[in-house]
Amino acid sequence: MQRFINNPDDIVDETVAGFVRAHSDMVKLDAENNRVVLSQWAGEKDRVGIVTGGGSGHEPAFIGYTGKNMVDATAVGELFSSPTAKSFHDCIKAANGGAGVAVLYGNYAGDNMNVKMAAKMAKRDGIEVKTVVANDDVCSAPATEREKRRGVAGEIMMWKIGGAKAATGASLDEVIATAQKAIDNCRSVGVGLGPCTLPAVGHPNFEIEPGKMEVGIGHHGEPGTRVEELKTANEVADDMTRIVLDDHNLPAGTEVAVLVSGLGATPVDELYVLFDRMASQIEAAGLKVYKAYVGNYFTSLEMVGATLTVLALDDELKPLLDMDTACPGF
Amino acid sequence: MQRFINNPDDIVDETVAGFVRAHSDMVKLDAENNRVVLSQWAGEKDRVGIVTGGGSGHEPAFIGYTGKNMVDATAVGELFSSPTAKSFHDCIKAANGGAGVAVLYGNYAGDNMNVKMAAKMAKRDGIEVKTVVANDDVCSAPATEREKRRGVAGEIMMWKIGGAKAATGASLDEVIATAQKAIDNCRSVGVGLGPCTLPAVGHPNFEIEPGKMEVGIGHHGEPGTRVEELKTANEVADDMTRIVLDDHNLPAGTEVAVLVSGLGATPVDELYVLFDRMASQIEAAGLKVYKAYVGNYFTSLEMVGATLTVLALDDELKPLLDMDTACPGF
Repeated sequence: MQRFINNPDDIVDETVAGFVRAHSDMVKLDAENNRVVLSQWAGEKDRVGIVTGGGSGHEPAFIGYTGKNMVDATAVGELFSSPTAKSFHDCIKAANGGAGVAVLYGNYAGDNMNVKMAAKMAKRDGIEVKTVVANDDVCSAPATEREKRRGVAGEIMMWKIGGAKAATGASLDEVIATAQKAIDNCRSVGVGLGPCTLPAVGHPNFEIEPGKMEVGIGHHGEPGTRVEELKTANEVADDMTRIVLDDHNLPAGTEVAVLVSGLGATPVDELYVLFDRMASQIEAAGLKVYKAYVGNYFTSLEMVGATLTVLALDDELKPLLDMDTACPGF
Repeated sequence: MQRFINNPDDIVDETVAGFVRAHSDMVKLDAENNRVVLSQWAGEKDRVGIVTGGGSGHEPAFIGYTGKNMVDATAVGELFSSPTAKSFHDCIKAANGGAGVAVLYGNYAGDNMNVKMAAKMAKRDGIEVKTVVANDDVCSAPATEREKRRGVAGEIMMWKIGGAKAATGASLDEVIATAQKAIDNCRSVGVGLGPCTLPAVGHPNFEIEPGKMEVGIGHHGEPGTRVEELKTANEVADDMTRIVLDDHNLPAGTEVAVLVSGLGATPVDELYVLFDRMASQIEAAGLKVYKAYVGNYFTSLEMVGATLTVLALDDELKPLLDMDTACPGF
């Protein structure tokens, strides 16, 4: 394992310490819980607070999207594990400015359970909490069972738009409705070419034979829908675009935002190669690429692979996506 | 080779096409040379133009730092190869707004030769051209032969500060003097844990045995000063900081900017682990971390490893570093 590590048990603490130190103009540690990263703007009076959280190892997600007009408080879990209910609860308390708190998170069993418990605890504190559960990962369940799908890189779009909506002074119900619309308008797919290794485990979390790829892979190596021969970049881009657009079924003329993220060890140039072909296919389908993000936005340690997220825009979402932010992840 | 590629000969064209497509709000292709990426603000009248260029495979460098208050025109080479003299010349012409052009580039044989030729060609066009050659890579030559050292991630600081200086309306001589100061005030070091593969070659460009690391490695796998046992993240961070600070020899109290970049396949969380320790050591040496950048800023395809750059600041450089920019790489 060719990696920069000390004691594997300390990686998350050390990552968070380095993160808040590097970006102290935008974020800080919670005074009492070092698994809670706060925006310097958290708790602004009468503004809806935005909370998220998730396992570590996906940097810059989740902590990197904490900041101005974005997420106010982010709960930090162990590598690939949910944060605790206590950390989500501490996030809710810190993000609360009296107008309620929107918890915008991904659909994983641990996160679902811990957010629910945290919301109950916050209710006893007198804080109004509502949630949106991201489920943009097309291959993780059929369209008829969308509520079973996992949340992946579309969460970044949900946080961006939810945070911007809160910044406009919208009510909790309005923020929730808009964040829900943002994730409902997202579809994502991942393709894996190589596994990653949790340092405490010491061996890869799954296998991909040389010359093969896994289509529909999840952010923790969850199995995809098929393993097949590794194709050319253009063929992979075509497959990914088709999977997303077939499920999306958008009317011609729709403007979209496109996010192509590396999974950790894919060269950045190849993400642009994929994007160029995807954008051509998206436009060939009669859609218009309004905005694009290409880079390492939501990773899985040193997994080799990429994800595509397509967000359908409308007149409400466009200015929210365009609103200025200050967070380390963008 | 688990990679997203079409024909290896097309990677650079496809990367550049995807890049300008993704970031058309900030950059565009030169109308006649598809190896020249222009800022949307290139050629502004009476402002000094900033040009750079270098081999591909280091994305977001070099093209990613093209933009507002940054680089005006970037010449694009093949993977790990210098751009042509013609591309540098086309950059100079496009960046020229009548106040002269500063070419701020890295110390590599091919780049030196091609920039010199391009400057001669531009002189015949009546454009005043001056250059700064970055040589921040401490391990590539002894301090007594600093002119032999290669340019690495410190170039980003040189572009940032040079571009900001030009935006203030400074003269060509002033921009050159400030960019020269920026790179003179930078020291960098790289550590490699795993090699990368040029797709057209198909095998790794060098070997690192499991359990070993190469200290002082260059951005193309140029040999470092020593191969040794892979140490803990803290020990590696200590070594890297010591190499940089011993060469830098800065007076106590100096404010510095710190840039920790992954080389392509190192998990982002580990960059923060390294940064946290480096920042502690930098502060223990009596210096003050004014600003930090941690992420994939200057990569080498999917090389495993990281670089540290320390830039000594003063009252002139600080506001230039802080000036707003719009470019895809930040």
